[in-house]
Amino acid sequence: MKKIEVGILGATGMVGQRFIQLLENHPWFKITAIAASERSASKSYREAMEGRWKLETPIPLEIAKMEVKECTPNLDCRLVFSALDSTVAGPIEEEFARAGYIVSSNSKNHRLDEDVPLLIPEVNGDHLTIVSRQKERRKSNGFIVTNPNCSTIGLVMAVAPLHQRYGVKKVMVTTMQALSGAGYPGVASLDIIDNVIPYIGGEEEKVEIEPRKILGKVKNNQFVMADIIISATCNRVNVKDGHLEAVSIEMEEKPTREELIDTLRSYNPLKGLKLPFAPAQPIVIREENDRPQPRMDREEGKGMACVVGRIRKCSILDYKFLVLSHNTIRGAAGAAILNAEYMKAKGYLD
Amino acid sequence: MKKIEVGILGATGMVGQRFIQLLENHPWFKITAIAASERSASKSYREAMEGRWKLETPIPLEIAKMEVKECTPNLDCRLVFSALDSTVAGPIEEEFARAGYIVSSNSKNHRLDEDVPLLIPEVNGDHLTIVSRQKERRKSNGFIVTNPNCSTIGLVMAVAPLHQRYGVKKVMVTTMQALSGAGYPGVASLDIIDNVIPYIGGEEEKVEIEPRKILGKVKNNQFVMADIIISATCNRVNVKDGHLEAVSIEMEEKPTREELIDTLRSYNPLKGLKLPFAPAQPIVIREENDRPQPRMDREEGKGMACVVGRIRKCSILDYKFLVLSHNTIRGAAGAAILNAEYMKAKGYLD
Amino acid sequence: MKKIEVGILGATGMVGQRFIQLLENHPWFKITAIAASERSASKSYREAMEGRWKLETPIPLEIAKMEVKECTPNLDCRLVFSALDSTVAGPIEEEFARAGYIVSSNSKNHRLDEDVPLLIPEVNGDHLTIVSRQKERRKSNGFIVTNPNCSTIGLVMAVAPLHQRYGVKKVMVTTMQALSGAGYPGVASLDIIDNVIPYIGGEEEKVEIEPRKILGKVKNNQFVMADIIISATCNRVNVKDGHLEAVSIEMEEKPTREELIDTLRSYNPLKGLKLPFAPAQPIVIREENDRPQPRMDREEGKGMACVVGRIRKCSILDYKFLVLSHNTIRGAAGAAILNAEYMKAKGYLD
Amino acid sequence: MKKIEVGILGATGMVGQRFIQLLENHPWFKITAIAASERSASKSYREAMEGRWKLETPIPLEIAKMEVKECTPNLDCRLVFSALDSTVAGPIEEEFARAGYIVSSNSKNHRLDEDVPLLIPEVNGDHLTIVSRQKERRKSNGFIVTNPNCSTIGLVMAVAPLHQRYGVKKVMVTTMQALSGAGYPGVASLDIIDNVIPYIGGEEEKVEIEPRKILGKVKNNQFVMADIIISATCNRVNVKDGHLEAVSIEMEEKPTREELIDTLRSYNPLKGLKLPFAPAQPIVIREENDRPQPRMDREEGKGMACVVGRIRKCSILDYKFLVLSHNTIRGAAGAAILNAEYMKAKGYLD
Repeated sequence: MKKIEVGILGATGMVGQRFIQLLENHPWFKITAIAASERSASKSYREAMEGRWKLETPIPLEIAKMEVKECTPNLDCRLVFSALDSTVAGPIEEEFARAGYIVSSNSKNHRLDEDVPLLIPEVNGDHLTIVSRQKERRKSNGFIVTNPNCSTIGLVMAVAPLHQRYGVKKVMVTTMQALSGAGYPGVASLDIIDNVIPYIGGEEEKVEIEPRKILGKVKNNQFVMADIIISATCNRVNVKDGHLEAVSIEMEEKPTREELIDTLRSYNPLKGLKLPFAPAQPIVIREENDRPQPRMDREEGKGMACVVGRIRKCSILDYKFLVLSHNTIRGAAGAAILNAEYMKAKGYLD
Repeated sequence: MKKIEVGILGATGMVGQRFIQLLENHPWFKITAIAASERSASKSYREAMEGRWKLETPIPLEIAKMEVKECTPNLDCRLVFSALDSTVAGPIEEEFARAGYIVSSNSKNHRLDEDVPLLIPEVNGDHLTIVSRQKERRKSNGFIVTNPNCSTIGLVMAVAPLHQRYGVKKVMVTTMQALSGAGYPGVASLDIIDNVIPYIGGEEEKVEIEPRKILGKVKNNQFVMADIIISATCNRVNVKDGHLEAVSIEMEEKPTREELIDTLRSYNPLKGLKLPFAPAQPIVIREENDRPQPRMDREEGKGMACVVGRIRKCSILDYKFLVLSHNTIRGAAGAAILNAEYMKAKGYLD
Repeated sequence: MKKIEVGILGATGMVGQRFIQLLENHPWFKITAIAASERSASKSYREAMEGRWKLETPIPLEIAKMEVKECTPNLDCRLVFSALDSTVAGPIEEEFARAGYIVSSNSKNHRLDEDVPLLIPEVNGDHLTIVSRQKERRKSNGFIVTNPNCSTIGLVMAVAPLHQRYGVKKVMVTTMQALSGAGYPGVASLDIIDNVIPYIGGEEEKVEIEPRKILGKVKNNQFVMADIIISATCNRVNVKDGHLEAVSIEMEEKPTREELIDTLRSYNPLKGLKLPFAPAQPIVIREENDRPQPRMDREEGKGMACVVGRIRKCSILDYKFLVLSHNTIRGAAGAAILNAEYMKAKGYLD
Repeated sequence: MKKIEVGILGATGMVGQRFIQLLENHPWFKITAIAASERSASKSYREAMEGRWKLETPIPLEIAKMEVKECTPNLDCRLVFSALDSTVAGPIEEEFARAGYIVSSNSKNHRLDEDVPLLIPEVNGDHLTIVSRQKERRKSNGFIVTNPNCSTIGLVMAVAPLHQRYGVKKVMVTTMQALSGAGYPGVASLDIIDNVIPYIGGEEEKVEIEPRKILGKVKNNQFVMADIIISATCNRVNVKDGHLEAVSIEMEEKPTREELIDTLRSYNPLKGLKLPFAPAQPIVIREENDRPQPRMDREEGKGMACVVGRIRKCSILDYKFLVLSHNTIRGAAGAAILNAEYMKAKGYLD
């Protein structure tokens, strides 16, 4: 099988680096174009990244030699992964879609657009049908698909199976988010040493609205938001990778703890599709009383699983638990890759 | 005025060290006896502490020379501060009370006893009357007074004025607690580097029950617990001192944000008593969107204030905010000292 | 006594903030002007510092209200402390000196100038005489005095008494430097979590040359560099404040360990001058085998002392030891203040 | 090929865990026995490790089910890896050797014995001949082979090729060592947060003597120590894994920088032996000015390589550079495994 040629928009930032790292040796996709801002353009990727490559594994050799292009829709590929900064992502992604590219974006700009899926393949793969509206609107075969914010995704993965079976009504969540979520240079070391920062700009708003779209439905080619109330407090803690979230939920039906755990554990809607980035077990339950922990559990399912622990009764809502997911893999680049794999499996890349 | 002679039980642990540090130059109290386990007994305090003194300020010279005694009730003082480990605090404190000592304890053992005040002077100073029952029971002038757990106290200080004015019904709290709360050696560095530990043994239970006693009433010489539901999730983060807590509350009455802030800000029941350890402002409101932060705000009011920030509407309960308090000052040694000062001011030490 | 009016150049950066913090309630100096880049100019200091004040103590009230000026020599004061960034410090400081101001600078730009003292009052107070050359050159009463780089100063303080008595020939030093030395935002948290960075741009060069000027002599109104070879390796570690340095030295004379310690301990050339910022004991010796430690010892002498420990034989050079000093107090703002105090005591401010 | 059956002594500690992790799927060795102290004995390994397994990868399933044995020489294997604590390793390892087992030990106890090799296969594989003396002494086919201390090994790997070619005379080294080197619980988090500890008990002595044995020769079946003077200062920094060392060396011959680098880079004495744990490149040179860094480079060669950077002239000795090696892989378990592989390749396990 010939690999599908893909490009990376915003290839020099933290998420762009993850795309490059994760796509090395991908069985379906092959990076044929990397693009970034003017500053980096027309340098080799290695040159452009001098002092900026921040992953523990080295730059893949083939990519290191590639020339960085500008983010204009004349890249040699069919699909682009977008890790663009939100200050520029909006119009650039739009332009690529108009030019016929399929855009799998990690940027926030189009997440809430009325014809753009905010996709977690396990949860709302059916939302993809909405892209027909984009195609019509633009008179183009291109379209944009987005993945959720890094602190939304773990939360939604854990809540989705419960919502589908029991009807989730309320979600209270307090996050303890990793440094890599802020990009690079991101959080100053002087701000976080011996400290917690109880604020992340715009984050609580995303966590409170995005799950309602994801858990909602598409009716008559329109999104209907799920009727769930979410209240979020977002904190930055001194952890490299892995967002940990303390969650309490109220549901219409009242399962026993065992039923609830069973519902989470048996949740595996992508089983059978054999998507390379789909974890064998999307929700991993830890029974120890002190898990999940960011450093110990973030690599679960190669960073694509959502780890849930400390499931217990909540005296105010129904149940409470902790959720962990890797914010730059499942919460960013890995999510966009899985979205693309899902689209491929469903024929959207043909 | 002659200073009141006080002893320290459990003088070698982290909280014991704080007692010694904080009581240096105290205007009312003077340490005349320090006691610890057999292992340290009959050494000088300096000898006993070799490699174990963990505060940034040095051991006060006078204390360094004092001989460490065993924890038996023949110490040369009237009042003892107890920083005893909970494995031994129960019977030792009881013994001291029986022998006529007044015990201001930071240990958890007697906190929930039916005739022992769980005291925050700003909040429930009137609970002190219950000690008459202790005196009767023991046929002794000695008695025990306790202060709350380090993660309870900041929470209750912020909730108390709201409860008194608006009737708090529900409290949801997620803590991010400092390392010093676990004592020394406490949390292993390998467990916390690049990590969060989402569990602290016994902590959630304390946070869920202690506030109900503190915010309750004494009727007919009996405690009546406050009718508040509390749900807690307790986490350990990589911070030296200062417990940060994300709190949501539901109240019977529904104040505006401005009223609520005004209620917190104007709360100062100890004003006029001139207690040395009472902060000028028990509840400090920060209006910046990223405060309170442990490292920046824990020394507020010399570590005795409770700092509240990010006060905003909660879409599930009524309001949510962040609370910070210094866990080994207001949350431990400083609390017990303020309790003793309050008792002195109210004539309980006569 | 009327206080001397002083200005702060570069008042918004990390070192500028320290100047403002340390000069609050200074018995001799009073801040009457604060100046910074155009971006901050004509705002109140509080406004200019929104989100940028990074010290644990609050902005002094009087300063908060002051208007930030531009760095032009029409400030209402006689003496200016310069915390200017090295990209602009050179000409601005020169301009102020030409206009008649005395400039006590922490910036590197003029440190090696042939008529500018690189001053540590305990060590080379006599170098001040060289400013007569500046006055002549500029036909102005203004002049510039500098303090050493933050990693130079602790090293030189420990080496100076040994050099004066025994003749130091070689110094090998490996530093472990704090984050605050890089300013704000400075080191990215993603770069330093679970890491050490074995490089600080330009630092080794400074450490290898500055001590030779400081320990040198002024002969015929010219600097003669000390004949010492220094080899430095500079590392950044995950510590907020306090530079720790592992030092080995070779000397012409060979004192015993006791003699060497006695020489360090008895070193106190400023004794009697009663300078407010001079520590009672400039060099504090710690005998424990695991000191000095940055967090435990950096506040020694209110951050103005140099703490030396683990003094022992070196099998290659003669002796080795660890040195610690607070990089933003003794290593920056505090150093410049002590320089100004010394100049005042010696009549240079008249 | 049938795998060689191996046992792990001290299987529950940090190094024991690493042995178990690293030997999973080893092509030559298969764990058939795990042994630890009485406390763990006769439990399953999973039970014994409850709350104690500290690696990010899970316990291999087969091992989890195995019963933990006591450390007595009736284990079902031919070779044992020893991760025993030094308080007990001495006599237990001796006993195993006497009973005919081959012991590949990471413990310090026998490292300096006159008939025990202190082995780094790349460096002194020929020292293995000395085990004939052990066999004679004990009248047994068993023998002990040791690997160096975790801070010795990176240093020696970098120095060895230079010594062999240019004759190293003096080595000055300042280490910045990782937390995992202290075992578990090891360093208290309160001791290392915002701090460096400039002391590690016994470490400097090991670093100053072990390289002399390793770089020495075996003559007439006796060790002759290398004539090298080493001076070490050992510090603990807030890093999980990876010891970083600042090194200066003096040599008899004076290579150019290019020659020196070439000597390091081309060093590969094990090439051709195809040992599974031998890194493709034992010494990896980094040319960037800020490398090696612990978090970025410790996994080089799967944790078995030694990474050298910042090679430059030293103004006191000849050259200085930074060395990094993974302290629990190349510095402990991985070293002992490579030693066993080398023995296998050389026929010592037949």
